[in-house]
Amino acid sequence: MAAERDLTAALQAFFPGHRDLLVGIGDDAAIVRQGRGPVAMCCDPVVAGVHFDARTGWRRVGRKAVNRNLSDLAAMGAVPDWLLLSVVVPRDTAPARLRQLFTGVRDAASLAGARVVGGDVAASSGPLVVTVSAYGHLPGRALTRSGAKAGDTLHCSGTLGGSRTGHHLTFRPHLAEGHWLARQRAVHAAIDVSDGLVLDLATMLDASGGLGAELDAAAIPVRAAARRLAGGDRERALHRALGDGEDHVLLWAQAPRGLAAGGPLSARARRPIGRVLAEPGLWLRAGGRRRRLRPLGYEHAL
Amino acid sequence: MAAERDLTAALQAFFPGHRDLLVGIGDDAAIVRQGRGPVAMCCDPVVAGVHFDARTGWRRVGRKAVNRNLSDLAAMGAVPDWLLLSVVVPRDTAPARLRQLFTGVRDAASLAGARVVGGDVAASSGPLVVTVSAYGHLPGRALTRSGAKAGDTLHCSGTLGGSRTGHHLTFRPHLAEGHWLARQRAVHAAIDVSDGLVLDLATMLDASGGLGAELDAAAIPVRAAARRLAGGDRERALHRALGDGEDHVLLWAQAPRGLAAGGPLSARARRPIGRVLAEPGLWLRAGGRRRRLRPLGYEHAL
Repeated sequence: MAAERDLTAALQAFFPGHRDLLVGIGDDAAIVRQGRGPVAMCCDPVVAGVHFDARTGWRRVGRKAVNRNLSDLAAMGAVPDWLLLSVVVPRDTAPARLRQLFTGVRDAASLAGARVVGGDVAASSGPLVVTVSAYGHLPGRALTRSGAKAGDTLHCSGTLGGSRTGHHLTFRPHLAEGHWLARQRAVHAAIDVSDGLVLDLATMLDASGGLGAELDAAAIPVRAAARRLAGGDRERALHRALGDGEDHVLLWAQAPRGLAAGGPLSARARRPIGRVLAEPGLWLRAGGRRRRLRPLGYEHAL
Repeated sequence: MAAERDLTAALQAFFPGHRDLLVGIGDDAAIVRQGRGPVAMCCDPVVAGVHFDARTGWRRVGRKAVNRNLSDLAAMGAVPDWLLLSVVVPRDTAPARLRQLFTGVRDAASLAGARVVGGDVAASSGPLVVTVSAYGHLPGRALTRSGAKAGDTLHCSGTLGGSRTGHHLTFRPHLAEGHWLARQRAVHAAIDVSDGLVLDLATMLDASGGLGAELDAAAIPVRAAARRLAGGDRERALHRALGDGEDHVLLWAQAPRGLAAGGPLSARARRPIGRVLAEPGLWLRAGGRRRRLRPLGYEHAL
C-alpha cells in the first residue's frame, strides 16, 4: 500500500478547487470564503498503533488529537475558534477512559481559546480513532506553502528530532508564532513540520514553483531527545532532526533580516537554518563541504 | 460498554456552551456565530462492521459518510457548503478502492452543492473509518429539537423502517425539505430520524421541556422494505417503522395545518402522524385503543 503522503496526494488530486476555496487540499489547512471573512479549516485523525502507542494514556491522546490540528491552523496564521470531535472507541472501553480523552481534548482546546461544539462517539472492534476538525478565523493574511522565493532565508520555530520519545504527545502548537509571522510581510511561505524537516521543506519548495535549498548543519536546532536517541553521535542526531518528523514547529521562508523586532520568536528562531536556491535540489552544508540531501522519508513513529 | 447514545450524551455533558455557540452538542448540528452569520457544523463517522457491512462497495460507503452528515444539516435548515474528509483505511487497501470511496464522497457532495476542501488519509490495522465534517450556512432561522409545543401535530418527510436492506446506504438527505420547513413559522422543532422514530421523537420531546406524544398507527408511513422484512405481518412492519432507525427523514412538530402551500413536501408528509401532548409519555393509537410505547432502542444495523 502506498505511503500516507501519497494517499493524501490522491485525495488532493481528486477534489479540485473552486471560486470560494482560497486554499485547498494540500496545504496545512483549507481556507474558504464564508460570510464576511476567510475561514481556515482542517481535519486530521490520530489512530492507536499509528499515531500513538496503544498503551498511551487517553488524556495525552486527546491532547495530541487537538494539537495536531491546531498546529496546522498555526501554520496558516489562523486563530482556532471551534472544534468538532469524532471518536471511535474499542467496544470494551470504560467510561472513565473516555472522560480522560475528553479531558485531554478540553485541556488543549482551552489553552488555545477554542471550543468543542459538536461531536459523536461510536464503538467498533478496531483501534481507538480520534478525529478532530478545527475551524478558525484569519486576523491577517493566510500563510501558505507556496510563496517562497530564491534568496529567502529558512527558519524554524523550535527544535527538531526525537519526537517519538514524548514530544509528539506533549507539544504546544505554535499558534502565537504563526499569527505573528502572518503579520510580517517579509514572511513568504510557512509549513507545519510534521513529516520531517527535509520532507516538509521539499513540499514547500515544490509548492513554490520548484525551488531548491541549502541547509546549514551547524544551525539546525537539534532536540535533546534526538541527541539522546543518537547516543551522543552528532551526525546521527542531525539525521534525526532532519527526518524524524512530528516536530510540529513552523518552518518558514522569509526575506533575509526582514522581521520586525519583538514578538514571540526566540532569538534562535530568528537565525537562519538555511536559504532558498533558484535551482531545484536540497543540500546540506557541514564544515566547508556541501552534500546532497535525499528527501528523508517519514511515516509515523510506531 | 454503554450504548453509543450514552457515549455521545457523555460528550455533550462534558463540553458546555458558550456565548457564540448558539446550538451546542446534542442537536443534529452545532450552530456558531462566525463572521457575519450563523454557521452550522457537524461531524459523524461511519465504521466498517458498525455502520455498514465490510463487504459494501466503497462508493456507497463514501456516499453514506457524506449523506449522514448532510441529513444532520438538513434537520437544522442549513445549506451545506464545505466538507472535510478524514479516512482511516486498512493497511492493504488498493488505491482503486480508495478512488471509489472518493467518488462516492464527490457524488454526494455534488448533488448537495457542497465541496470537499480538506482531508487526510491514514492507514491502520483496524476497519475502514470515514469521518466527514460538514459545514453550512443558514439562509433563515435554525431549526432545533427544542421548540415543540403541546397541541402540535407531528410529521415526517419520508417512509420508515427496514433501512438496513439498502436505504441506509442510498438515502437522499432531505435538504430541500429542511430549508423549506425552516422558513415556515408554524414549524416549532425538527430532528433527523437516525436512531428510530420513537427514540428520536422522545429526544425531541425531552429537549422541548418534557412533553409527551401520541402516534397514530394507521398514519405511520411504513417503508416497503420494512413490510418485506416483516413477511407481510402488519404489526411487525409497524414495529420496524417505529424503531429500526437510519431512516434519515425529518421528523417535525408544527402548529396544526400551519404550513404554506407549495414547497417540496409530499402530500403524505403534510398529514400528521401524531400529536404532541402536555404530559410526558409516548402512546400509540391503533384502532380504538391506545397503548404505551417504550422508547424502542436502536444501535446500528450490523
